[in-house]
Amino acid sequence: MATARLLLLLMVAAAAGSYFCTGEEVIMGYGDELAEEPAPKPAAPYCGSVRMALEAHNIIGWKTVSADCADYVADYMTGERYQRDSDVVINEAVAYAESLKLSGKGKEIWVFDVDETALSTLPYQANHGYGAQPYDRTSFLRYVAGGSAPALQGTLRLYRRLLQLGIKPVFLTDRTEDQRAVTAHNLVQQGYCSWEKLLLQPFGLQTSTQAFKTGERQKLVSAGYVIIGNIGDQWSDILGSPEGCRTFKFPNPMYYVA
Amino acid sequence: MATARLLLLLMVAAAAGSYFCTGEEVIMGYGDELAEEPAPKPAAPYCGSVRMALEAHNIIGWKTVSADCADYVADYMTGERYQRDSDVVINEAVAYAESLKLSGKGKEIWVFDVDETALSTLPYQANHGYGAQPYDRTSFLRYVAGGSAPALQGTLRLYRRLLQLGIKPVFLTDRTEDQRAVTAHNLVQQGYCSWEKLLLQPFGLQTSTQAFKTGERQKLVSAGYVIIGNIGDQWSDILGSPEGCRTFKFPNPMYYVA
Repeated sequence: MATARLLLLLMVAAAAGSYFCTGEEVIMGYGDELAEEPAPKPAAPYCGSVRMALEAHNIIGWKTVSADCADYVADYMTGERYQRDSDVVINEAVAYAESLKLSGKGKEIWVFDVDETALSTLPYQANHGYGAQPYDRTSFLRYVAGGSAPALQGTLRLYRRLLQLGIKPVFLTDRTEDQRAVTAHNLVQQGYCSWEKLLLQPFGLQTSTQAFKTGERQKLVSAGYVIIGNIGDQWSDILGSPEGCRTFKFPNPMYYVA
Repeated sequence: MATARLLLLLMVAAAAGSYFCTGEEVIMGYGDELAEEPAPKPAAPYCGSVRMALEAHNIIGWKTVSADCADYVADYMTGERYQRDSDVVINEAVAYAESLKLSGKGKEIWVFDVDETALSTLPYQANHGYGAQPYDRTSFLRYVAGGSAPALQGTLRLYRRLLQLGIKPVFLTDRTEDQRAVTAHNLVQQGYCSWEKLLLQPFGLQTSTQAFKTGERQKLVSAGYVIIGNIGDQWSDILGSPEGCRTFKFPNPMYYVA
């Protein structure tokens, strides 16, 4: 029986090989396709597929929004879809939090990223191409120093619900220690009125955001906290053990932080 | 200075608190919103946001496609968007593989999931509501036993390119050992003509797919293999260390496997 199966396999392989397995065709890479086919399809559906691939962590390490998707990303960020995508994520996070039976010991925490998660830098991005222009550290730090970043309303809704439920918020950001005062001020002014911890990067730290955040979460767990949830707009916010009991990727097609 | 900052913080907190931080509003969960607002917006954009949330691993543990998104998912799976989303993922995977400098020792492998990654069960799903009907194990196993699942052409393109590059394919599936012959036959017939390993679950294994697959990847690494890439349509295919140097989430809004 096994021999018969093998024979069948070999016959099928041979038959298929002549058709399927020549392996001679030229495969185009992602960049090639863009270069050789500048406008074969409308930009929006294609850019929607790219956005999906960013959100699902398939496209990584990118520097700027590509020129052919710049208008799409600007429309997305300022339109209903960003709101709706965000609301679906937040609704899921709220439903999850409400489903939990807490220990009542006060050690359950929820980790929030800051930029593009708790606070929006959209007023800044609007003047800098919504990610289509290269990152300009100086002007971005100036925006942060202004302390005027508005709350993302969905995240604020999650934050308030967590407080009601007795889950304590921890803000964990790659903003640096020298930005502590302005960050605290900005958070409070926007309605994030209390927190268990506000953790910022030491100034001049030579590591990736993901390594920094993973290390900080490890310290929290070692200190007896239970990370019930973890939400951020970057995969570097939510990858790396201990990542938290559940993680939530908040939408952001404008920039990538490793 | 610190005192002045603290005073400012407290003043802002007090001012903000009266407006932002009452914490009294009723927050609706995800299910509530569906129940109380049956048709406030067109289904398609909302279902698109849900699909995004599934792909980004924000909504987990779901059993079936919700009734209000059944038509959307059917249209998605049979239309251009599924093809385009898949192509963007595959193009990225191909570009990544082409960018690598291999050791030449022949130990570099790429892990492929089978159902909805290498092979499509769409002919089956078409007769079972594209995920809107509850999973029916008997009829699904009958479909698998037929050995007629077509290749997903994008994945086949990636597979062929990897062979050209010298990266060896490993198929890792939650299909069980008793399905080995039909799975091998189906793969070969569809153009997946060779592999380094075809790893199936022991029949009757009492563990999650994620735990099984993570364990199998650990065995591969322990045996000296380098998992260059790992592609699957489920997060349980690509989460869990060692997950591989890079992971790729292939689209699938039809069903969820933990």
